[in-house]
Amino acid sequence: MSGNHALIIGANQGIGLGFVRHLLQRQDYSRVYAAARTIKTPELENLPPEQAAKLTWIPMDITREPQIVVGIEQIRQDIQTLNLVINCVGLLHSETVQPEKSLRQVTMDQLTQYFQVNSVGTVLLAKHLLPLLNHQQRSVFVSISAKVGSIGDNQLGGWYGYRASKAALNMFIRNVAIEYGRKSPKTIVAALHPGTTDTRLSKPFQGSVPPEKLFSVDRTVAQLLDVIDHLKIEQNGGFFSWDGTQLPW
Amino acid sequence: MSGNHALIIGANQGIGLGFVRHLLQRQDYSRVYAAARTIKTPELENLPPEQAAKLTWIPMDITREPQIVVGIEQIRQDIQTLNLVINCVGLLHSETVQPEKSLRQVTMDQLTQYFQVNSVGTVLLAKHLLPLLNHQQRSVFVSISAKVGSIGDNQLGGWYGYRASKAALNMFIRNVAIEYGRKSPKTIVAALHPGTTDTRLSKPFQGSVPPEKLFSVDRTVAQLLDVIDHLKIEQNGGFFSWDGTQLPW
Repeated sequence: MSGNHALIIGANQGIGLGFVRHLLQRQDYSRVYAAARTIKTPELENLPPEQAAKLTWIPMDITREPQIVVGIEQIRQDIQTLNLVINCVGLLHSETVQPEKSLRQVTMDQLTQYFQVNSVGTVLLAKHLLPLLNHQQRSVFVSISAKVGSIGDNQLGGWYGYRASKAALNMFIRNVAIEYGRKSPKTIVAALHPGTTDTRLSKPFQGSVPPEKLFSVDRTVAQLLDVIDHLKIEQNGGFFSWDGTQLPW
Repeated sequence: MSGNHALIIGANQGIGLGFVRHLLQRQDYSRVYAAARTIKTPELENLPPEQAAKLTWIPMDITREPQIVVGIEQIRQDIQTLNLVINCVGLLHSETVQPEKSLRQVTMDQLTQYFQVNSVGTVLLAKHLLPLLNHQQRSVFVSISAKVGSIGDNQLGGWYGYRASKAALNMFIRNVAIEYGRKSPKTIVAALHPGTTDTRLSKPFQGSVPPEKLFSVDRTVAQLLDVIDHLKIEQNGGFFSWDGTQLPW
């Protein structure tokens, strides 16, 4: 297929921006929709014309359902099917949020923010994307999760909100996989662990990561696209690492 | 020990009220603190005097941290140690909330409410209860979770908010277990699955439950107290069913 269509959410930075770059270069994708809260595209200003022609920016804050509805309507006026959706939106820290080192730092407001951004966004996207993903070809809907969101793998503690919101995301992904499995049998839904990647999200925490375990965005995106390209329908609803191995819940 | 102290949260109905009744009858508990948003005690109005003397009601909405602080301060003016804390607060349905049968019913507001009541409450309690649980005797801090909150066990889908909020609760419990393990080495933290119990929470969904699998509150409470009494320190951070078996995350 040379006419595949992709939607990347959280596309203006980090891993999301990396996916947009890679997919624009691939001959098998003819349309790339790049959704983000704030559309800033300095990195993509000097695209070759054939790549620029494939790219459409969609303003979208996935914590606000009406913006999801409007953004997807904009896509549907253009095309009728999506082959790949990757939700890369994730909150670990911001100007007002810091991951909790201990219970003393836990608050209702901060935990709520983690759940709304890291967990609920994906399920609101899934609610509205079904018509575009349900067609005769294989389609893939994935969210970037994190191994620290594995309950069984948790030996260190801390990062209460980030960990719990990724665990909740994993449950949502499994639930979406079951519901999509009934309604859109050629769609594969999965949660992906990218490995620690050199982005703004991991920047304050890279000190404890050995250099060989800190991936460039390019490497992470190439690895995850390889995983995505090889996902089989029997893997629907799974949680996979950057090397394709299955992770414990 | 005949002088144990317990705190039950969500104590005015269902399983929470059952724990209060059972613990008031036990000779090894000399104080029972019963916390709830709304304190209605018709079921406990005609207690024998020796049981009534053991019982103290604490007004507390666990989604409001200041109320937790004030309630625990009230307990600390009375005693210095707790041996058992059971959080029984849980939301499945209410006048305004119905568990989602499909993605179409998912909304940000409802999912946020599930997370705030079913997940965050426990971690706010854990934040403030450490000083009362950290002492020379064994102490136990448990929350009522649910097998439908097991990601690995999820084969049916639906109930998006309830399932994800219980998965998030399980991650919080594991995180609290790790942090308490460092600071309060004789405290055991666990998530418990009660089985389907004949309470207001399960009432609308009992039709699909075979009669032998629908437990009375008395049976559930007796089974869970047996699990609690036998929890070992090596089981800290686990997720256990009413028969003591470990559940998958």
